[in-house]
Amino acid sequence: MPAFSRLIRFLAKDGNIYYGDAILPAGVTDIATATMARVIQGDIFGQHRVTDHVAEVKILLAPLAMKDIKTVRGLGLNYEQHAKESNLPAPKYPVLFYKPITSITGPNDEIPVPSIAQVCEGLDYECELVIVIGKQARNVSESDALDYVLGYAIGNDVSHREWQLKRGGGQWALGKSFDGWAPFGPGIATRELIRDPNALSITTKVNQQVVQSSSTRDMIFDVAKTVSFLSMGTTLLPGDLIFTGTPQGVGMARKPALWLKDGDQVEVSLEGVGSCLNRVVWEKTPSKL
Amino acid sequence: MPAFSRLIRFLAKDGNIYYGDAILPAGVTDIATATMARVIQGDIFGQHRVTDHVAEVKILLAPLAMKDIKTVRGLGLNYEQHAKESNLPAPKYPVLFYKPITSITGPNDEIPVPSIAQVCEGLDYECELVIVIGKQARNVSESDALDYVLGYAIGNDVSHREWQLKRGGGQWALGKSFDGWAPFGPGIATRELIRDPNALSITTKVNQQVVQSSSTRDMIFDVAKTVSFLSMGTTLLPGDLIFTGTPQGVGMARKPALWLKDGDQVEVSLEGVGSCLNRVVWEKTPSKL
Repeated sequence: MPAFSRLIRFLAKDGNIYYGDAILPAGVTDIATATMARVIQGDIFGQHRVTDHVAEVKILLAPLAMKDIKTVRGLGLNYEQHAKESNLPAPKYPVLFYKPITSITGPNDEIPVPSIAQVCEGLDYECELVIVIGKQARNVSESDALDYVLGYAIGNDVSHREWQLKRGGGQWALGKSFDGWAPFGPGIATRELIRDPNALSITTKVNQQVVQSSSTRDMIFDVAKTVSFLSMGTTLLPGDLIFTGTPQGVGMARKPALWLKDGDQVEVSLEGVGSCLNRVVWEKTPSKL
Repeated sequence: MPAFSRLIRFLAKDGNIYYGDAILPAGVTDIATATMARVIQGDIFGQHRVTDHVAEVKILLAPLAMKDIKTVRGLGLNYEQHAKESNLPAPKYPVLFYKPITSITGPNDEIPVPSIAQVCEGLDYECELVIVIGKQARNVSESDALDYVLGYAIGNDVSHREWQLKRGGGQWALGKSFDGWAPFGPGIATRELIRDPNALSITTKVNQQVVQSSSTRDMIFDVAKTVSFLSMGTTLLPGDLIFTGTPQGVGMARKPALWLKDGDQVEVSLEGVGSCLNRVVWEKTPSKL
């Protein structure tokens, strides 16, 4: 069991980057509001301890450093209502795809939109419960699966529908892989803290307007089923992330479609964890097509 | 420029694991035949030197350690004749997918087939030129792209067609991601050694019978185009691998289909680089579905 409850990674006012256990007032659960944390020493996934050193948070970073993240998985069509709005049947097996580790970014970082993604419309948001694997797992049963989970975060599986669905030969990767297209955070609430990950409210706001509002209860494959299935014949490693799919209300399914524009603010929130608030920024430097 | 010509990673007869520069007799290019290598010290992608310490090769390992591989990309339908045999038009843009780092295995390791992949037919081979990125790259032009390439290897993008095409909701990941389903090696021939990566013969043999035999000349997106395109808005990191697609002759397209069976030997070869020879082994321990 980890020695921390709410793992954050942050640039401190003393200029150092630390892993820390966020200090929140009683009753407050939004990790994004943390202004102080007890510094953690050691290996987050192994021997570590929460020290008495309290540091002041200047900027929250992605709760795991890139070197500590191995593989980023995502599920498609994992919410009943989202499958419906996409006019697709609920999948029989989890629909798996990957995002590269370079798509990970912090809870308040900008989401850069390269020029290759500016040539056509289609930039969309997807709020998602993110499972963080804590222990190596292979062929684990549903009943044991949660033992391998460190905790949960909220993520945004930023997606460009034109590159995802029309220009990728049917594979979603091109539209989901750009640098910084997986904001994640604001911290990781441990499994011990989140008693039932399958009953959390989850929302997205674009420029403060609610556009997605659902519950992880609507997930077709819950957390245990997802971890168990993905571990079949496949070793999940400490630091692997699983984005578990998004509920209804994505921009693509709205009439008219709601595409993100340069400067838009997107906030994704998960009950018991908190929020990531990111601004979409059109890159000026050309990435030639 | 790296100080080595043919990078291998190996278990030496002295019991240590080393990176080394393979020693081959004049005129021999198959890195798999190396019995000795000069040990390399330092960072393969940065400061390093080839020492005078010659070690004897006991077992060739995947030419990069898992910790040195960041992201494994693959291209689909990147050979003209393979697109034809798949009854699909040549793609307008590279068709991108990923394999997890846990799919990487050595040039002579067994390919484990978990029970989840034994429940239906469809196990197939794909010989592929593998590009190894040597320097961080983002938004690089075609004319500069090769500067970011460390070298080339041969890989097998092992694929289960039923899980890839029918049970994955249209996404290929489920059928390409199992542990050890990306044999890669036998070493990395540097860019300086391989003058034209787009004109190399490439083959697969199953139980010593030739089943794929083509040239990288048939690639739709050549090495420079591939690296440049994939770097658009996306940072490629040293140690990233790109499996560049397979030529015609896959088991799925044969009449009757040729599916790999327990115990089959699969050999993939690339001119100037050498061969990976792997045995397919049905796992006995159940991975429950």
